[in-house]
Amino acid sequence: MGEFDLIEKYFKSRFALEREDVPLGMGDDCALMTVAPGHQLAVSTDVLVQGTHFFAAVDPHTLGHKCLAVNLSDLAACGATPKAFTLALTLPSLQEDWLQAFANGLYALAKAHGCALIGGDTTRGPLSIGITVFGEVPMGQGLKRSGAQGGDDLYVSGTLGDARWALAALQGKIQMDESTLLSTRARLETPTPRVELGRGLRGLASAAMDLSDGLLGDLAHLLKASKKGARLDLRHMLNSPLRSVCMMTSPANEALQYMLQGGDDYELLFAAPPSKRAAIETLSNALALPLTRIGEVTDNEGVEWLHAQDLLGERSVQDLGSYDHFL
Amino acid sequence: MGEFDLIEKYFKSRFALEREDVPLGMGDDCALMTVAPGHQLAVSTDVLVQGTHFFAAVDPHTLGHKCLAVNLSDLAACGATPKAFTLALTLPSLQEDWLQAFANGLYALAKAHGCALIGGDTTRGPLSIGITVFGEVPMGQGLKRSGAQGGDDLYVSGTLGDARWALAALQGKIQMDESTLLSTRARLETPTPRVELGRGLRGLASAAMDLSDGLLGDLAHLLKASKKGARLDLRHMLNSPLRSVCMMTSPANEALQYMLQGGDDYELLFAAPPSKRAAIETLSNALALPLTRIGEVTDNEGVEWLHAQDLLGERSVQDLGSYDHFL
Repeated sequence: MGEFDLIEKYFKSRFALEREDVPLGMGDDCALMTVAPGHQLAVSTDVLVQGTHFFAAVDPHTLGHKCLAVNLSDLAACGATPKAFTLALTLPSLQEDWLQAFANGLYALAKAHGCALIGGDTTRGPLSIGITVFGEVPMGQGLKRSGAQGGDDLYVSGTLGDARWALAALQGKIQMDESTLLSTRARLETPTPRVELGRGLRGLASAAMDLSDGLLGDLAHLLKASKKGARLDLRHMLNSPLRSVCMMTSPANEALQYMLQGGDDYELLFAAPPSKRAAIETLSNALALPLTRIGEVTDNEGVEWLHAQDLLGERSVQDLGSYDHFL
Repeated sequence: MGEFDLIEKYFKSRFALEREDVPLGMGDDCALMTVAPGHQLAVSTDVLVQGTHFFAAVDPHTLGHKCLAVNLSDLAACGATPKAFTLALTLPSLQEDWLQAFANGLYALAKAHGCALIGGDTTRGPLSIGITVFGEVPMGQGLKRSGAQGGDDLYVSGTLGDARWALAALQGKIQMDESTLLSTRARLETPTPRVELGRGLRGLASAAMDLSDGLLGDLAHLLKASKKGARLDLRHMLNSPLRSVCMMTSPANEALQYMLQGGDDYELLFAAPPSKRAAIETLSNALALPLTRIGEVTDNEGVEWLHAQDLLGERSVQDLGSYDHFL
């Protein structure tokens, strides 16, 4: 089976979600799309590389899910509705079982979001998957990192640290029971992009981003873009719905590190003025998703952590760091 | 230097081409774009992988040029005007000299086409470069592979085979003099995307595509999409402006193989009704680019090569094949 038969069999015939706004999809030099009147196109790119983002032995079905999920998470952070994506697949060889499972995982998530595969590239080389995703957002309503104002509340959705916890277990660094491994591993391998939350936050949030490199590092990016600082209470992190399953089985010090530093959570971090608290609670209830107020935005730059010393002793919160591919 | 400093130093501060239709560029979770009223967005993705598409020792400046050029070539094939692109860069390590040269080559071509870098992803792994490119085309005027009609003329721009010839020399398979190597190598390493030609062909061509895998294979794709066949004269290929520099130094048989089978030319193949011949000649003159009529589209499927036996003896043209990553 050659490159073109492969594309035909596993992708082209399968993924042709009919969308009127994609008059030309896979199989030509370019795809053609229209953008709805009064809307902007949101665009994001993410690549997953074997050895860096996933193990060689990863289940291809979950890999298919994850490589699109991390991109949909960027659309969520912007408040955009998913529309379409391109797939750049670099494969060391053709293994049909692998491809079938990968395509199934990818397709299930794409279909759930009505996101059409409109083109791509298939080449031979070390395994990596690059996706560029497209969404639509009403003109001027896209959420950015740069809009946080002094006095805004800071929120995080869901829980933090599960994915990092599962990674440590898979690396053999820690032990955990079977049911904990199952639930944390699902968070690592099949994260849920918070698309509905992002859309719901249009008009409520002053700034937003997704958490892929860990709260500490990502919060710093949001504050830098907004030219603001923040004040947070470390005790509150431990006692909030944010605490992941790891908090129940691990010493507080280590669990806190995973919560603050661990990447791959794909929750949303956002700022909103206190006047929006009731609306945000309504949204949280509607989505059955905890939205935890973790602190507030300050006009002074820098991040102040209340009660850090009580919990971390001599280490500072900043020492925990966040993920960087080249550090 | 970490991932974010790297992006800032070599890309973000450098590539910020101001475009009103890109209100949010690099540095957020998504970029935001508007599409001009009455226009469609053309999208294409191509990945270049070390060991598959280029040698480890390739000059990073030319690599920066080529990875965007092959994507702009897809926009050209569609008749679209370049607008923006995303860059997914996977690097084994940070070498600042390399990055600087790569960014310079990429920037020069992007700037020449007014194409803004709007986002991307930088990760650690085996060297590969993935680009997704965006262009605009007036609604309904995008060129496709599927529009060729029986009786249309078939054309190819420029020359064919130079890139393949240079590759063979660099692989040590053939010898060539220094000046021939220089000129063919430029065609391999810094191809010229035929963007002006593509735009000029709007309203003239009935079908178009770019030549990246070799004329034989790519022609088959265009004909399959159009559900047509073609009739071509092999003698004419040898005596046309299409013949590359290799024709002058190589046996006809081998040179013809490079012309027909060699990839990486990034010329345009297109079909147009005979009534457009004068307009196409005007376009050729204006762009100082040979546009060679190589044959005609037939309603019967299949490709008929006149005088093939005189030139190839027992081998058939189809035996020459074309490039496939997995065959």
